[in-house]
Amino acid sequence: MMLQESNRIGRIAMLFALADAGETLTTPLPNGWRYCTGKVGSMNSQKIVAAMETAAKSSHIIETDVYRETHALYHAIMEALYGVTRGQVQLGDVLRTVGLRFAIVRGNPYDRKQEGDWLAVALYGTIGAPVRGSEHEAIGLGINHI
Amino acid sequence: MMLQESNRIGRIAMLFALADAGETLTTPLPNGWRYCTGKVGSMNSQKIVAAMETAAKSSHIIETDVYRETHALYHAIMEALYGVTRGQVQLGDVLRTVGLRFAIVRGNPYDRKQEGDWLAVALYGTIGAPVRGSEHEAIGLGINHI
Amino acid sequence: MMLQESNRIGRIAMLFALADAGETLTTPLPNGWRYCTGKVGSMNSQKIVAAMETAAKSSHIIETDVYRETHALYHAIMEALYGVTRGQVQLGDVLRTVGLRFAIVRGNPYDRKQEGDWLAVALYGTIGAPVRGSEHEAIGLGINHI
Amino acid sequence: MMLQESNRIGRIAMLFALADAGETLTTPLPNGWRYCTGKVGSMNSQKIVAAMETAAKSSHIIETDVYRETHALYHAIMEALYGVTRGQVQLGDVLRTVGLRFAIVRGNPYDRKQEGDWLAVALYGTIGAPVRGSEHEAIGLGINHI
Amino acid sequence: MMLQESNRIGRIAMLFALADAGETLTTPLPNGWRYCTGKVGSMNSQKIVAAMETAAKSSHIIETDVYRETHALYHAIMEALYGVTRGQVQLGDVLRTVGLRFAIVRGNPYDRKQEGDWLAVALYGTIGAPVRGSEHEAIGLGINHI
Amino acid sequence: MMLQESNRIGRIAMLFALADAGETLTTPLPNGWRYCTGKVGSMNSQKIVAAMETAAKSSHIIETDVYRETHALYHAIMEALYGVTRGQVQLGDVLRTVGLRFAIVRGNPYDRKQEGDWLAVALYGTIGAPVRGSEHEAIGLGINHI
Ligand SMILES: [Mg+2]
Ligand SMILES: [Mg+2]
Ligand SMILES: [Mg+2]
Ligand SMILES: [Mg+2]
Ligand SMILES: [Mg+2]
Ligand SMILES: [Mg+2]
Repeated sequence: MMLQESNRIGRIAMLFALADAGETLTTPLPNGWRYCTGKVGSMNSQKIVAAMETAAKSSHIIETDVYRETHALYHAIMEALYGVTRGQVQLGDVLRTVGLRFAIVRGNPYDRKQEGDWLAVALYGTIGAPVRGSEHEAIGLGINHI
Repeated sequence: MMLQESNRIGRIAMLFALADAGETLTTPLPNGWRYCTGKVGSMNSQKIVAAMETAAKSSHIIETDVYRETHALYHAIMEALYGVTRGQVQLGDVLRTVGLRFAIVRGNPYDRKQEGDWLAVALYGTIGAPVRGSEHEAIGLGINHI
Repeated sequence: MMLQESNRIGRIAMLFALADAGETLTTPLPNGWRYCTGKVGSMNSQKIVAAMETAAKSSHIIETDVYRETHALYHAIMEALYGVTRGQVQLGDVLRTVGLRFAIVRGNPYDRKQEGDWLAVALYGTIGAPVRGSEHEAIGLGINHI
Repeated sequence: MMLQESNRIGRIAMLFALADAGETLTTPLPNGWRYCTGKVGSMNSQKIVAAMETAAKSSHIIETDVYRETHALYHAIMEALYGVTRGQVQLGDVLRTVGLRFAIVRGNPYDRKQEGDWLAVALYGTIGAPVRGSEHEAIGLGINHI
Repeated sequence: MMLQESNRIGRIAMLFALADAGETLTTPLPNGWRYCTGKVGSMNSQKIVAAMETAAKSSHIIETDVYRETHALYHAIMEALYGVTRGQVQLGDVLRTVGLRFAIVRGNPYDRKQEGDWLAVALYGTIGAPVRGSEHEAIGLGINHI
Repeated sequence: MMLQESNRIGRIAMLFALADAGETLTTPLPNGWRYCTGKVGSMNSQKIVAAMETAAKSSHIIETDVYRETHALYHAIMEALYGVTRGQVQLGDVLRTVGLRFAIVRGNPYDRKQEGDWLAVALYGTIGAPVRGSEHEAIGLGINHI
């Protein structure tokens, strides 16, 4: 439904992250694009970062042994975390925890070929006190060239 | 399609902000909820904040002459801007500009009545150099009780 | 002595936090206002947050099982910590520790009834190296509607 | 009333900043200590910094032509502004304005002579939308050796 | 003298930025690497960013009409500015000005060819009050894949 | 080679930090200046701070039992860490580690005697994932009066 213009990589990643179990995007991914999704919950920000890096590598979104790809992903993850944490990239240190769905999409969102591949990291979930129900939603998006 | 669980206020606001012209959400808003949407583009962060405050007031999402409502909105806007700016809430000062769609939703996303109304401010658009095409997508979400 | 205008909630909270043992404020709290005070010292920022949340709940400043109240308090605490930490909300991670007195006050500081209750969280104490005497004073204040 | 222990420079500065017109501190300043107070209101953070620097120089709290003294004051002012702004040292850029009383105190708050002079910069006032009444209190304290 | 290992791009860029007029690096740049240097002084952070972007484009360090190259440079510049500003990427807004030499170097600092080109942006100069002599040195380095 | 003007304390400290084993600066330190250098690697930011404080004290760059000296050093270290971390002074919490050389220099970089001693803390090394080779260079400089 939502995806008319098919190459907006951040929007696509966010729709994946927002999608509930069983929902599917109504527009196919552009040719040659790759993505993965996953879930992670923790008070430990290190684990959040690690879960996304592991997913991206095991899904072959990025090449494990090429540092520039890891570097591109790392900064996209950090930028997405700014949106989720809104001020200080801290979770347990300030007594809060997150439960997140993430989507990582790789492709060229621009018309011209020389723009190459880009990464979008989208996060959607909840943030709050480590008490069931004491939480509200949070969202983040990071975009980087790769 | 996407909205199975109807009271996730942040997700609803983000889907509004992501919606292209002519798209409509497939699930109705919960009873009594209100929202507005709009567009704003500027290098001037002050104008971005003002555009959302004006829209929320003229659409009667918040009461103009009750400070607690303005205060709740202001902090939700600032939290959404963290996601868009990812590190420093600055635009022109660091030579970048944004073109954003915004959605502001008001309602009680929790089961219990005493949680009262909450606000979600969602931003979706582009950020980049003040040169056509030198930009990528950006997203932000702020949630606050009101 | 200091409180001529009786409804400045932040000033009242700060005077409570600054008060030494045995000192009392010379002006009574406005009718219906509630407050608590306490002390906490730690290198662990999580413990600082937890001590204030626990005090506010056990003193019935906020209602334990209403999330909007916990949410209001949490953000007021975080804002107060910005003043204490001045740049990064970190303690032990950057090898420093705090010893703080805190005061949490709840009431309506505005003339009009519909502004409802607000919270002020005031912190006063010392911050420094984990070595006796290697420290200076620090202060923070967070204000939020509830 | 409040000052039992006479050399807590941050507490003294904050009590000066909190004092209403006509109020006086009940305990004298330690011998040889100097202070000044003032008021400044602006959406322009540059003007806030300048007002305090000018006051400190014209009141001979710091020596105008010794850079180390200006440097010490500058960082104390910046630390105080963190408390007032709580996240981003920005005012008009994020559509808010402040009205502040400030106090700058100079003296040696430690027992040992070789600790030399220190500076405390205390800020107390309101922050909010550029609309009368749409504001709440804010406080900041910066401490530095000089 | 200093450059034994010839491919440390950040170190090379910093040595260029530190070099006084007439000084030359004693080790040649690796084959195929490009660089430019320049100077910029301003209270206006926008001008600092613009000066480096202009220099990099006019010196053909990056391709003007490929956004991914502009994007890589922009983030490297922003990272370098974090080092110079140490907390808030603001200059005139907090009443300070900078006088900077910059060096931008492009090349592959890694052994393996598939790491491709990287950018280093190095800044060296002074930061301080807009008064001659009221300033101290500041340094920043940003590194990004391109 | 590089040091023509002999009293630029930040530049000297950075050249020390950039120097490889066996390299020496071609210009002597100004009379009466002191410095130390060292290495530290960790995911734990607390250890980074502690290593520099310990080195400065054991090398008699600062006086161990004078708090104003510890305070001056602490803030110079924190400012240097802003350059290395570029946004959030966090290492392991965001799944990254550093390997750094540091140099701490003490002296008066100004013409006039009353400016007294200043400290420069320079950091040079790598930052990245806790995987060999997945890292790039990072630099930071902090300057403070003492
Ligand atoms: Mg970007
Ligand atoms: Mg919240
Ligand atoms: Mg507020
Ligand atoms: Mg300090
Ligand atoms: Mg990097
Ligand atoms: Mg400084």
